[in-house]
Amino acid sequence: MKLWQKNTSVSGAVEQFTVGKDPEFDLLLAPFDTLGSMAHVKMLATVGLLTRSEADAVIEELKKIYALCKEGLFVIEAGVEDVHSQVELLLTRKLGDAGKKIHSARSRNDQVLVDVKLYLRHEIEMLVQAVEPFFQLLIRQSEQFKQYLLPGYTHLQLAMPSSFGLWFGAYAESLVDDMTTLQAAFKVVNKNPLGSAAGYGSSFPINRTLTTQLLGFADLNYNVVYAQMGRGKAERITAMALANLADTLARLSMDACLYLNQNFDFISFPAELTTGSSIMPHKKNPDVFELIRSHCNRIKALPNEIMLMTANLPSGYHRDLQLLKEHLFPAFQTLKDCIQMATLMLDNIRIKENILADEKYKYAFSVEEVNKLVLGGVPFRDAYKQVGIDIEEGKFTYSTALNHVHEGSIGNLCNDKIAGMMREAIDGFGFEKVHKAVDTLIKG
Amino acid sequence: MKLWQKNTSVSGAVEQFTVGKDPEFDLLLAPFDTLGSMAHVKMLATVGLLTRSEADAVIEELKKIYALCKEGLFVIEAGVEDVHSQVELLLTRKLGDAGKKIHSARSRNDQVLVDVKLYLRHEIEMLVQAVEPFFQLLIRQSEQFKQYLLPGYTHLQLAMPSSFGLWFGAYAESLVDDMTTLQAAFKVVNKNPLGSAAGYGSSFPINRTLTTQLLGFADLNYNVVYAQMGRGKAERITAMALANLADTLARLSMDACLYLNQNFDFISFPAELTTGSSIMPHKKNPDVFELIRSHCNRIKALPNEIMLMTANLPSGYHRDLQLLKEHLFPAFQTLKDCIQMATLMLDNIRIKENILADEKYKYAFSVEEVNKLVLGGVPFRDAYKQVGIDIEEGKFTYSTALNHVHEGSIGNLCNDKIAGMMREAIDGFGFEKVHKAVDTLIKG
Amino acid sequence: MKLWQKNTSVSGAVEQFTVGKDPEFDLLLAPFDTLGSMAHVKMLATVGLLTRSEADAVIEELKKIYALCKEGLFVIEAGVEDVHSQVELLLTRKLGDAGKKIHSARSRNDQVLVDVKLYLRHEIEMLVQAVEPFFQLLIRQSEQFKQYLLPGYTHLQLAMPSSFGLWFGAYAESLVDDMTTLQAAFKVVNKNPLGSAAGYGSSFPINRTLTTQLLGFADLNYNVVYAQMGRGKAERITAMALANLADTLARLSMDACLYLNQNFDFISFPAELTTGSSIMPHKKNPDVFELIRSHCNRIKALPNEIMLMTANLPSGYHRDLQLLKEHLFPAFQTLKDCIQMATLMLDNIRIKENILADEKYKYAFSVEEVNKLVLGGVPFRDAYKQVGIDIEEGKFTYSTALNHVHEGSIGNLCNDKIAGMMREAIDGFGFEKVHKAVDTLIKG
Amino acid sequence: MKLWQKNTSVSGAVEQFTVGKDPEFDLLLAPFDTLGSMAHVKMLATVGLLTRSEADAVIEELKKIYALCKEGLFVIEAGVEDVHSQVELLLTRKLGDAGKKIHSARSRNDQVLVDVKLYLRHEIEMLVQAVEPFFQLLIRQSEQFKQYLLPGYTHLQLAMPSSFGLWFGAYAESLVDDMTTLQAAFKVVNKNPLGSAAGYGSSFPINRTLTTQLLGFADLNYNVVYAQMGRGKAERITAMALANLADTLARLSMDACLYLNQNFDFISFPAELTTGSSIMPHKKNPDVFELIRSHCNRIKALPNEIMLMTANLPSGYHRDLQLLKEHLFPAFQTLKDCIQMATLMLDNIRIKENILADEKYKYAFSVEEVNKLVLGGVPFRDAYKQVGIDIEEGKFTYSTALNHVHEGSIGNLCNDKIAGMMREAIDGFGFEKVHKAVDTLIKG
Repeated sequence: MKLWQKNTSVSGAVEQFTVGKDPEFDLLLAPFDTLGSMAHVKMLATVGLLTRSEADAVIEELKKIYALCKEGLFVIEAGVEDVHSQVELLLTRKLGDAGKKIHSARSRNDQVLVDVKLYLRHEIEMLVQAVEPFFQLLIRQSEQFKQYLLPGYTHLQLAMPSSFGLWFGAYAESLVDDMTTLQAAFKVVNKNPLGSAAGYGSSFPINRTLTTQLLGFADLNYNVVYAQMGRGKAERITAMALANLADTLARLSMDACLYLNQNFDFISFPAELTTGSSIMPHKKNPDVFELIRSHCNRIKALPNEIMLMTANLPSGYHRDLQLLKEHLFPAFQTLKDCIQMATLMLDNIRIKENILADEKYKYAFSVEEVNKLVLGGVPFRDAYKQVGIDIEEGKFTYSTALNHVHEGSIGNLCNDKIAGMMREAIDGFGFEKVHKAVDTLIKG
Repeated sequence: MKLWQKNTSVSGAVEQFTVGKDPEFDLLLAPFDTLGSMAHVKMLATVGLLTRSEADAVIEELKKIYALCKEGLFVIEAGVEDVHSQVELLLTRKLGDAGKKIHSARSRNDQVLVDVKLYLRHEIEMLVQAVEPFFQLLIRQSEQFKQYLLPGYTHLQLAMPSSFGLWFGAYAESLVDDMTTLQAAFKVVNKNPLGSAAGYGSSFPINRTLTTQLLGFADLNYNVVYAQMGRGKAERITAMALANLADTLARLSMDACLYLNQNFDFISFPAELTTGSSIMPHKKNPDVFELIRSHCNRIKALPNEIMLMTANLPSGYHRDLQLLKEHLFPAFQTLKDCIQMATLMLDNIRIKENILADEKYKYAFSVEEVNKLVLGGVPFRDAYKQVGIDIEEGKFTYSTALNHVHEGSIGNLCNDKIAGMMREAIDGFGFEKVHKAVDTLIKG
Repeated sequence: MKLWQKNTSVSGAVEQFTVGKDPEFDLLLAPFDTLGSMAHVKMLATVGLLTRSEADAVIEELKKIYALCKEGLFVIEAGVEDVHSQVELLLTRKLGDAGKKIHSARSRNDQVLVDVKLYLRHEIEMLVQAVEPFFQLLIRQSEQFKQYLLPGYTHLQLAMPSSFGLWFGAYAESLVDDMTTLQAAFKVVNKNPLGSAAGYGSSFPINRTLTTQLLGFADLNYNVVYAQMGRGKAERITAMALANLADTLARLSMDACLYLNQNFDFISFPAELTTGSSIMPHKKNPDVFELIRSHCNRIKALPNEIMLMTANLPSGYHRDLQLLKEHLFPAFQTLKDCIQMATLMLDNIRIKENILADEKYKYAFSVEEVNKLVLGGVPFRDAYKQVGIDIEEGKFTYSTALNHVHEGSIGNLCNDKIAGMMREAIDGFGFEKVHKAVDTLIKG
Repeated sequence: MKLWQKNTSVSGAVEQFTVGKDPEFDLLLAPFDTLGSMAHVKMLATVGLLTRSEADAVIEELKKIYALCKEGLFVIEAGVEDVHSQVELLLTRKLGDAGKKIHSARSRNDQVLVDVKLYLRHEIEMLVQAVEPFFQLLIRQSEQFKQYLLPGYTHLQLAMPSSFGLWFGAYAESLVDDMTTLQAAFKVVNKNPLGSAAGYGSSFPINRTLTTQLLGFADLNYNVVYAQMGRGKAERITAMALANLADTLARLSMDACLYLNQNFDFISFPAELTTGSSIMPHKKNPDVFELIRSHCNRIKALPNEIMLMTANLPSGYHRDLQLLKEHLFPAFQTLKDCIQMATLMLDNIRIKENILADEKYKYAFSVEEVNKLVLGGVPFRDAYKQVGIDIEEGKFTYSTALNHVHEGSIGNLCNDKIAGMMREAIDGFGFEKVHKAVDTLIKG
């Protein structure tokens, strides 16, 4: 059964090819499709396109379908084209003509648009919920290990003293900026396309402001042609935000793999968190970090993939957009998994003590010695030359005592400031308004 | 002369290869390098690393260098490695030891970091200034041509009536969402990395909060290891925002090329804005739009380019980062040029009247006829089938009168709402705070 | 059970995360893993690491496992880590110590390397087999429709007469060049990594030349460190070749969508090969071509995805490489599906007659008129100006008769030459040598 | 002056925007444009479109222009649109009508196509010439340092003994496979598009087979519509081949940076090949390798950039293609520079002796001990377990003597085989045929 089917049957091959993996992704959209329909039906009743009692009956059924979705019991029956058709079928079976009427004043185009936006909005929130405890762990470990020094490198060359306080804290602060771009994606996503129909609006006197409020959107995608352009664009901007978060995790993983390497030997993990080799009995491999890195680098490829799939398409819907779901949607789960695995690993990390006591790191202290001369009144360039010559002539002496006091330095990590920025970032999403609207829709 | 040169000379080939095109880009950074030094010097004086009179003398000279930059007269002398060395050289020539002292408590790493961030901050503002009149033009043309209908397409198939009011307005609204991601980039950029030295801070008792205020940054990159990670990340996030803006322009250009095609023939341009063919005397080619599209698609490749150049680098500075400037920095000018050319073209566009009066577009009105039945009480699915059968049997009749009244539709464009969102987006950047700080630094 | 497991158990979360979707892809590798083991075992017997009778027994069992794979009955049992472990388990169950011995002189690293290469080699051949009939169809349609003219466009502007003979033939010839890059990928893939162990070889006196011959490889990956580097590289180069083929299909699809658009109206398809709209009863949408385009643009993103996942990894195996399978392997099936769907569509295409008879295309003949003047002795530039002025002054006259005779033109398509290039390209792969070796291994 | 200009003047802004940076790249194309014209003119004379004496005169002038190009004296005069116009202008000035006639039977579209293909063909050859000595150096160093062992890593974890013989040889062999894809690009490039005019051929009775022979192309792009599609495709396939070569260099650079790191400390370089720090007087940074890595990663972004710029463009020329030159053409020089710098560095590398004598690498020998047990008759899995338990219980003993004898292993590098593959790869390009044709054209 197809909504648009009239008197000809479509070739089986075409049907199989065009449907593709959509049923799988439609199940993810089902609860959001139901929410969108609830708002649409309530609105239709206010403008006289449904009677109040028709609307009430439909809403009642939609609540049941929503509950089915939440329990994982919603299915798309064999021969039914998509989630929208399945919902309409359930309603029509139960309610007859009232079910048929709910497609008034909308098209599958704006229906899937609103589904996708509600889905992305939800998944972004889930991601924020996964980031938050990971951030807290990073701050906690930064504080716990702030006395643990390690060499800092530039050009991968021994440079200056660093600390695990700095290292953990750096990734915590990185997450703050990642939240900034995720919030921008949330803002772009959190606007209502419903009512734009096939991208050109309709002659129905609908009230889009009302569905905006009912669904908890912050605003409308006003222009109906632009609302349709949002397909692909919302996905791209969301993928960019995921890529930023993924980059933070990938870099952390690269550091971890390096520090775990025997030549560095700064950190280790319990045996049950590493894996072995089929031929080398001594190996304790950091597979978890390698896979986080790999998954995250793949997620970083998503914005480009979306750009290639949408480049140079004229305005207006194209079926090409259907496939955007296939790699983007699973990326949310992958990213959450990566965050959880990183959390597990870093929660169990063991950090070597007194790394910098090893004399092989002595030149990491050369800047310290330069700076002491400067603080004693020698112009920087002269102090720099003198220490350089000492090193070349084998006369370099140093102390491992550090006194870094400025903001963000080893002795003054400013983790409270960073935590404050994170709190502000998360508060800025405004999830409460969304929750309130959705709760009202489901229960009201 | 190299800051770090001691007793060995570097091979000429190595020098040429490592310097590369940097001098060209360093000139772009010069005014910002000077601003950064002013703030640094003022701060050094407050913590006793320079005397007040040394600081005053240095600031005086830096103001002169800044003025040189603004007049385009600043040059990097032959044999001088980079902008930082050139500025230090000018100061040392004039002031001796005081000039040598200003490199205290910073490294070229944080110096170039702050330069890049100040540069990106400035260029983002210039871009916003270019977008604003383009947005206004789109809104103006949307209002002016709101009665001009054209066919709307889905799947590139004739679908429903659209209007040039909708078409122009859609791209205006697209710019609003683009400003949202540009603002996120601005927020990430507008934090102070100065004082992070080589990425591990220093033992100098500097006041990074003070330089943050002096340079008009909204906040600090607190953690010094994260401050260094900002290199590459600020560029990537900025490039993502440019890509979003570029995508809006590219899609607009694709539409324009299509509508100018003789089979569509919806729009035309004065002869002086199109170009000819070397063998086909009748051609009036839309080269401007094709080149906007091409430039913009290239800009869309930038985030990926940056990601490839920085993937899997461990934390800490790597020289790889030097090359990020080469494609990103020119993209600002390219994008501004594209916006200006699009403005020129759309300001001179000629739109065909009564396009939809042509009977070949009659099926664009089929949904209108379905909807009339629905508004008359027929359930949607039944009305849809009836009109479908009428079409198949050649009995379809229609009227070209449209009555679209809902938000964002042909008859109710909501351009005021869209303009309101744009105003809010632009206000959200907070450029005034930046201007005030920079003015104080230059003149104070 | 894990090959490398000793006395500690790995956390369940780590196990689930590290295994990921590998079992799914391991099933694809299973027949190739079995082939690789047959060659390895035969070789081990020749160098005395297995007795002849042990080898015979193992080979017998491996043939049974290979048959299971071919019948789709091979499964990886619960708790077994991967395909290699499952095969070893089956052998050990049946044969005891002889089964345990087959892992001598190899690692899972070179085992999976050889599996991946055998798999890619096979899939490339399957792709060539799918391309061949599609190519033949294009040539056939080119000949059949060589009299059907259509306007050719440059800048999407009406330019000169073209023909469907040219249009079909162009895509046929495009496939020839695509086969050239696919053959390069095949050459890179078709070299033997087996025996490189974990990427550093071993002290076993193995005979890698023998396994090379047994598996039908054209040559060895000699250097064992390079053999390991082939992981990621073979995938990237194969993905590039797929991207080229995908680009040909994507462009064809874009043309088809455009030509099917009502403003062009050059082609049509039977109703059962197009799809409808949920709200517009007149729509006959080219969803098949839109989805081919979208799938193919996604495949074009694969080389970049692989580059991001492998960028800046030092030499030596990293677990990151495991995930390369997940998007690359399914791309073969997707691309074959796209080729088959394009074949189905183009086999049923209907082409409008006498398109260029419509006077709206008259300027497509302007170059013809210029050329007539040139052939009559007027210098080109003067002829060009004269026709240009005729057009501007409304005096342009023309004939629709065409006499294009040079190689590759409307009147001389050279499809036999193109078919000859394709034959040569396909012959160049040398699949027969591969078949012969594999057959000998399975049956010998 | 514009070839296509008639009576209207083009706005200055449009002209500036559309010309862009083309003059810069047109200079690179100038000698090839001249070659293309020579072949075209010779052919025109054989089909009667030029008299023999006209042709001789034009050829004489073209030879002079070619000489100017080779001496770097060719310029595009102010106000002249492009290289094609400049050449035609020079000819017309000197020869009048004969000069005007040479544009017969071609368009700027096929003219620039043939220019680009001749340019790419030349640059690919130059690249092969740069690769060859680099390959020889790698083989030489592999032989020289074959006794120098270093630890091999998997998962960046200490794994097994490797050698600098293997390390250098691996990158040599990598270049062989890179030549395979470069040769595929060469084959795609080395086909003649000349005569396809604007992509639809012409009514002139030209002889494209003759120009193919004259220009030394291996074959024609027969179908004229496909010939035009070659624009963008030739660039993309070439960029893919460059990306493969770049990846080899980038990975080598990553290894070098790692091995130079003080924690590894395997290699070093003379001071004049490294650089210092502005604040850390002890630094000897591997900037050359970092910049090679960065340049190469950027080159790896090129195929994707080209794909984004050409995605979803219908067949037929679009002005978008003009910009493909801007990043691709400079990449040849960049890549040659990178190869030369890598050659300089590796020619001066210093390798530490007896790295593996350090007891910290003892577990790198664990597989050796397992294998000894296996060679003594213990089944592999049992030997593996026994050594694993020895390690866990601190009872592991080992010898550093290695006896790796199989193909491609530490003791049997097979560099002669690798060199043989490289010779065969380079011979396969067939540059001699090209040289002979071009020489005949210039001197004949």
